[in-house]
Amino acid sequence: MDDDALIIDRQPLPAGIPERLAAQLRFVAEADKLKTVLRASPLAAADRRENDAEHSWHLALMVVLLAEYADEPIDVGHAIKLVVIHDLVEIYAGDSPVFVPGAADDQQEREAAAADRLFGLLPLDQAEELRALWDEFEAGATPEARFGKAMDRLEPMLLNWLAGGGTWGMTGASEATVRAREAGVVAASTSLGDATGLLVEEGLRRGWIRP
Amino acid sequence: MDDDALIIDRQPLPAGIPERLAAQLRFVAEADKLKTVLRASPLAAADRRENDAEHSWHLALMVVLLAEYADEPIDVGHAIKLVVIHDLVEIYAGDSPVFVPGAADDQQEREAAAADRLFGLLPLDQAEELRALWDEFEAGATPEARFGKAMDRLEPMLLNWLAGGGTWGMTGASEATVRAREAGVVAASTSLGDATGLLVEEGLRRGWIRP
Repeated sequence: MDDDALIIDRQPLPAGIPERLAAQLRFVAEADKLKTVLRASPLAAADRRENDAEHSWHLALMVVLLAEYADEPIDVGHAIKLVVIHDLVEIYAGDSPVFVPGAADDQQEREAAAADRLFGLLPLDQAEELRALWDEFEAGATPEARFGKAMDRLEPMLLNWLAGGGTWGMTGASEATVRAREAGVVAASTSLGDATGLLVEEGLRRGWIRP
Repeated sequence: MDDDALIIDRQPLPAGIPERLAAQLRFVAEADKLKTVLRASPLAAADRRENDAEHSWHLALMVVLLAEYADEPIDVGHAIKLVVIHDLVEIYAGDSPVFVPGAADDQQEREAAAADRLFGLLPLDQAEELRALWDEFEAGATPEARFGKAMDRLEPMLLNWLAGGGTWGMTGASEATVRAREAGVVAASTSLGDATGLLVEEGLRRGWIRP
């Protein structure tokens, strides 16, 4: 997070770019900050935490690969779009780690304020479009949003599995809170929910998740 | 890049997951390695180089925001899918920086071998699907592939602009090689090509690009 100034203010665009496109490019520049928002999840491939941009990419790939398991038919392109934009507000609101008690307390207010500020950089029609996509995802209002949210639950579970515990070892994590995350997978996909259940049961058996 | 072993071999999946899904989850785990493949481009939001997963996410976002500028009509969902998977082969083939003389010499062979190995982890139908998507992108065979490639050219140009030079300062970079990258934007979008031209002209004027 860097709340101080827009990235583009360090190096304003050259003159001559039409205003609509210039606004969009300023947003594209500002979005670079998502690469610096750290999540609690450990990477499997390196000894560091994951950032929001990497996470969003991983969800998009999972939508491509796992869409066949959605219990309701989904428009794959639309579901990918939702996961690509779903964490953008964290550029200003920060990540709210699920196993940190209190982290979610004012999350909705912080993220709504961040959405106003961030999407407000765009031309009005696109600001409204991205806000609507984000609201759709947050509300789980459509099969695509529910499937995207399922990927958003499954990916960190898989990273925890690969790390031999990961964020399952955090103070606020226990079988109850982990099962609440599993429920987000089950809600969109019986098959993926079953597989997630196996990860959790074996995680409990190995002591990676506290009962 | 970690050529030594599959990520999943460190922590094999629990028993009971159907083989097709298990293969897909092993692929999802292996894909985590894309987060460790560094590109030459500097981030705007932090003092480090960009990795392939972040880059792929940024292109997906740009497709959502800039699709209106495509000279040919495009299916946005399909174009996003292409950019999400376009760099996966670099997990085994590594990044081939465009301004490093010789880096592209055996790039096609290396990447084709990497595609065989990586996509071969998937069930056959999906291996074929991802290979076809990757071939489509590489060949610029469709309007969606050409637009995705345009994003793949424009994003590092914008990062270079924001960095006050970035990879434009590398030994192999000059107006001719930078203009060759610009051509990839022009090929898919007159408007975005014009804007890219302005970045390059101003970059030349400021001495960020050698004539």
